[in-house]
Amino acid sequence: MATAGKVIKCRAAVAWSVGQPLTIEEVEVQPPKSHEVRIKIVSSGICRTDDHALHGDMKNINFPVILGHEGAGIVESVGEQVTELKPGDKVIPLCIPQCGKCSSCLSPHTNCCLKTQSEAQNVMPDKTTRFSCKGKAVYHFLWTSTFSEYTVVPTDAVAKIDDRAPLDKACLFGCGFPTGYGAAVNTAKVEPGSTCAIFGLGAIGLSTIIGCKSSGASRIIAIDINSNKFEKAMFFGATECINPKDYCKPIEDVIIEMTGHGVNYSFECIGSTDVMKSALECTHIGYGTSVIIGGAPPNAHITFDPYLLFTGRTWKGSIFGGTR
Amino acid sequence: MATAGKVIKCRAAVAWSVGQPLTIEEVEVQPPKSHEVRIKIVSSGICRTDDHALHGDMKNINFPVILGHEGAGIVESVGEQVTELKPGDKVIPLCIPQCGKCSSCLSPHTNCCLKTQSEAQNVMPDKTTRFSCKGKAVYHFLWTSTFSEYTVVPTDAVAKIDDRAPLDKACLFGCGFPTGYGAAVNTAKVEPGSTCAIFGLGAIGLSTIIGCKSSGASRIIAIDINSNKFEKAMFFGATECINPKDYCKPIEDVIIEMTGHGVNYSFECIGSTDVMKSALECTHIGYGTSVIIGGAPPNAHITFDPYLLFTGRTWKGSIFGGTR
Repeated sequence: MATAGKVIKCRAAVAWSVGQPLTIEEVEVQPPKSHEVRIKIVSSGICRTDDHALHGDMKNINFPVILGHEGAGIVESVGEQVTELKPGDKVIPLCIPQCGKCSSCLSPHTNCCLKTQSEAQNVMPDKTTRFSCKGKAVYHFLWTSTFSEYTVVPTDAVAKIDDRAPLDKACLFGCGFPTGYGAAVNTAKVEPGSTCAIFGLGAIGLSTIIGCKSSGASRIIAIDINSNKFEKAMFFGATECINPKDYCKPIEDVIIEMTGHGVNYSFECIGSTDVMKSALECTHIGYGTSVIIGGAPPNAHITFDPYLLFTGRTWKGSIFGGTR
Repeated sequence: MATAGKVIKCRAAVAWSVGQPLTIEEVEVQPPKSHEVRIKIVSSGICRTDDHALHGDMKNINFPVILGHEGAGIVESVGEQVTELKPGDKVIPLCIPQCGKCSSCLSPHTNCCLKTQSEAQNVMPDKTTRFSCKGKAVYHFLWTSTFSEYTVVPTDAVAKIDDRAPLDKACLFGCGFPTGYGAAVNTAKVEPGSTCAIFGLGAIGLSTIIGCKSSGASRIIAIDINSNKFEKAMFFGATECINPKDYCKPIEDVIIEMTGHGVNYSFECIGSTDVMKSALECTHIGYGTSVIIGGAPPNAHITFDPYLLFTGRTWKGSIFGGTR
């Protein structure tokens, strides 16, 4: 079927308004414009960030919208001036584009391309959308919108992958795995022999454990209020698991007691400002580093004692694991 | 005059209570105990931290106390088991001791020896004081108490310096110079060609400018509400100076406009939580690093949007410039 240049009708899970369940709809997907490609999505994961967006916990999300940002697929057609991709290429849409030209892309220290910031990538670079449904324009999400059988993505936000890659597994490289693994390896730069604490044991937390283990951490403390997650955490490399509900004191105090003076590295994989504080507080005075991986709700704020930083701790964040 | 083993009577500036002016008194200085030395202080600087302590803006300071922590002098006598120092050695008392044995001293990433934390070094390691005045015990400050003609310091907190060093200049190595210079060189690790913003142009801020310049920063923006300080800032390496009073918008917005998307590195050299926030906010998304050098008042807190860190910024602190 020759589809290039034509509108494709396909199924997508549409979020019509904040907090409402997604509904499977027939949508129209416009052909890609200049510097864009249209991708047939083969596999997509579901990430807590999609849920945050659905429930209004992300800034600048317009509805109706097609969510999803952890997908893998095959290029169906390409727009004008696209030379680096061709139909048939296996690809992963990237929620963090890499324009290669901005002050972030030109720095070796970040993956936060300045294009990332524009309206949560809710519309294409030309400020329009390629989706419609029942006569209404439907917005993009992070330029990926992998909850659709076809999606359109700017080429700056597409990574070509090996033809042999299994797409049902490769889709995890669209968010979960690099976000956690990269936070440990790229952002924290976990050193061999160090102690780590990972707060929250979803896909991000488990991937962070893998990153800490592969960096040679000697002690990996996994924390969750759901003890059912501990078996998987131990499988991926946690050396011990603790549930804050099992203690009557703050979990940061528990971790400080377990380790003497706190851990070398901690990771917040939830998006809770309270947990972000605990994660900072459980690090070792003088050299502890805490990494925020979870996205906090809009307008959330943290109140903390600057003495925690003054005495040598480092607090940083990581989007998509610093992966470029 | 053979003084070893005897009480020395000398002059000191004593702080009798919070907020009261120092008074010059005759004090008694006990001989050093085991692992301590008694030092004849030749020169002492005055640091804002002394003023913080005097005004009750530091935790755990007992009165009466002899302040001062930026001094240089000559060892007068040594206590038992002191082998690394001898009378006549030129030395600098260190407000950050280096025991060499704790988990901080064993890490290559910090100078925050865990001995630093005990009661603001208000008493010697044996929990007693070597000072008295008018029959009352007088407390130490940071184990240095350089506002006395003689002081007693644990050997872990004494650095021997070259016999040829001029003590009236060397005293600056007791606090101001390494605190600022080290924050740029050791803590931030300023890279050549980078842009820097320095908030507060006292001795610390000026030393930070020197650290940024010697690291090859291409642009050094110096900020103070007192424009009289700008000439000295330019002399030491600032490339431009701005006064927040000259603008009707927040200074972080001014700096972001001046630099496009913010600076690579910022330094807070005051101890103001509001300025700490501005300093973080004026750094570049994705890779900006902000260093807190100023000590905030006790019980001060910062409230901030974690999105600032989530999007790749780094916030850290530095005591004594990370100098070991």
